[in-house]
Amino acid sequence: MRTFHVELKKVVDDSYEIEIGFELEKKLIADLQQGLAGNIRKFAVITDSIVKDLYANQILTLLQESGYTAELFVMEAGEKSKTRKTKEQIEDAMLEKGFRRDCCIIAVGGGVVTDLAGFVAGTFGRGVPFINYATTLLAAADASVGGKTAVDTPLATNLIGIFNQPEKVYIDIATWKTLPSRQLSSGMAETIKHACMASKDFFNYINEHMEEILNVEKEPCEKIASENCRIKYEVVMKDERESGLREILNLGHTVGRAIETVSDYRLLHGEALSIGMVAEVTLANRLGYVTEAEKEEVIALYAKANLPTAIPDYINREELVQKLYTDKKVKNGTLRFVVQKGIGNIVEFEDGIFATPIEEAVAREIIMQI
Amino acid sequence: MRTFHVELKKVVDDSYEIEIGFELEKKLIADLQQGLAGNIRKFAVITDSIVKDLYANQILTLLQESGYTAELFVMEAGEKSKTRKTKEQIEDAMLEKGFRRDCCIIAVGGGVVTDLAGFVAGTFGRGVPFINYATTLLAAADASVGGKTAVDTPLATNLIGIFNQPEKVYIDIATWKTLPSRQLSSGMAETIKHACMASKDFFNYINEHMEEILNVEKEPCEKIASENCRIKYEVVMKDERESGLREILNLGHTVGRAIETVSDYRLLHGEALSIGMVAEVTLANRLGYVTEAEKEEVIALYAKANLPTAIPDYINREELVQKLYTDKKVKNGTLRFVVQKGIGNIVEFEDGIFATPIEEAVAREIIMQI
Repeated sequence: MRTFHVELKKVVDDSYEIEIGFELEKKLIADLQQGLAGNIRKFAVITDSIVKDLYANQILTLLQESGYTAELFVMEAGEKSKTRKTKEQIEDAMLEKGFRRDCCIIAVGGGVVTDLAGFVAGTFGRGVPFINYATTLLAAADASVGGKTAVDTPLATNLIGIFNQPEKVYIDIATWKTLPSRQLSSGMAETIKHACMASKDFFNYINEHMEEILNVEKEPCEKIASENCRIKYEVVMKDERESGLREILNLGHTVGRAIETVSDYRLLHGEALSIGMVAEVTLANRLGYVTEAEKEEVIALYAKANLPTAIPDYINREELVQKLYTDKKVKNGTLRFVVQKGIGNIVEFEDGIFATPIEEAVAREIIMQI
Repeated sequence: MRTFHVELKKVVDDSYEIEIGFELEKKLIADLQQGLAGNIRKFAVITDSIVKDLYANQILTLLQESGYTAELFVMEAGEKSKTRKTKEQIEDAMLEKGFRRDCCIIAVGGGVVTDLAGFVAGTFGRGVPFINYATTLLAAADASVGGKTAVDTPLATNLIGIFNQPEKVYIDIATWKTLPSRQLSSGMAETIKHACMASKDFFNYINEHMEEILNVEKEPCEKIASENCRIKYEVVMKDERESGLREILNLGHTVGRAIETVSDYRLLHGEALSIGMVAEVTLANRLGYVTEAEKEEVIALYAKANLPTAIPDYINREELVQKLYTDKKVKNGTLRFVVQKGIGNIVEFEDGIFATPIEEAVAREIIMQI
């Protein structure tokens, strides 16, 4: 018998910049010319059927006019496209067009596009660089920090994917003006979640500026985009592999993800999260971590963002209870919830443990009452 | 405009052990009991339709008898199973059986199984640990060091995948006794390639012990398994991301991979590589890096391992020339080859550049003559 030791210890630097502003298309090109993607001359612009005409075509043209080789790869808009099949179609189209390892991917779109394109980038030729050009508030809130990329499967959302960090993220707030108001509201769900878990001041700011935000005014939108990044970054930086602390970003997602799936994506992610947050804050109130007044304040802010705060009639609540078990926090067959403490804080149950076991009967009761 | 810096610099330790010996099933269980996979109690044993009855079932039973939860996931044997579809089927079966992020994958099989299972592990729940239990010489030579996992697509082999390091690798030489002789010979192709690029002594050792190796005698088999690991490790350790040096492991693979695909997998990987090495050494001779005698010596050793040294009649050579362009070393549309220098060395064309541009006409001429 012989043993052989493979020593693979190394320093990895995945640091990157997030740039928040208005109309950043030309800045992206300027950055590439300054060496953002090294010597790469070949770009795959991945987008969806809506963002294509709004922004991606323009970026494609700018790339080509600057002497780069660039091709557009378009998926159908919507969460239903976030599948292994779409990933496969894009990969095959890229291979067909002669893309190999010497390319860079630019994702132009919302969270679905950035999640999927980041996953494609991570496995194409065992990894090519990618850049996120986020065109929705949700992408700004959710997809710009953390490196989480994934697709959905029939049995669970976001369970097949990788951690993959972009070269740079652009958050172009001008693009929010073309968002349907339902999408803009949906994006506010993650923003309010961030406030609930980390900052009462930010919660109050959102409450005071909701109208301007929903009107896409520059100052408050830049503020919420950067606060989103800051809060998420502080959590992610401390726990890149989602071992403990990072689970707090799952606040509201236990019920939120399940209801998104059970609704067959009739509910947008943020709409589902809004209902999930109502479930979470109801649980927190029941466990004694949130007062009745705080609970109402959270629910009221979600309502103010024009988000649903009750489970729609078409949802089968028993099916929803069963679907909770597909949550990735489930351990040894037991449901686990992250719970907020007042507004702006998270309960730490034990040292480094932020998700607590909840009996199915309790989860069912809450789902039946909201 | 605001910018936000995401600082993600960290030390990553992906080190692991390779254990080479006879009948290591119980050692695997003992290692798990000693904490090899941390606190994980749930194992997905991924194998193929042939190895299932030979070894995987036994490992499954040992796991269950030791109190672990374990399930078997079986793919059809053969390179044709190394697809995104098989990956998807295994993922769905794992999700169906309740596997989530708190599991560990044990790959039991040859290179196809370890390549695919390592890729499944890397993307399941954004990454779960995995262990390779290699049951073929090829897996010992190729899949135990380097962390390369991948699947094939209709347009190219091994182009969709990730770098992913196992927790541990077991090379159980006893399993080689059940390998069909064609498979054992196929595994020798990578071993001889390693000798060609790194060690004339090892080349001579193989030449002198070929019969004992093909009879699976303990001492020479342990020797070639550990030499394979050592040579590959020295290359990989210096260049984990395959930026320059690591391309030398591609010796013979430019033509080898293409012919494997064009043969529609009638040729085993090692058989295709053997022909690819004949092409490479012919090119090396033409470029003046290998003498006529050295060229003949290399070809003779491949023949001694019962491997093909000429392109079979059923291959369309013009189609083969075109297929060369799917190679991942292709840059800006130009073919690039790694070339050996004598026996036991590789040509470094420029500082850190080990693959040289070759005109299509030259590649075609060589393919027409072998």
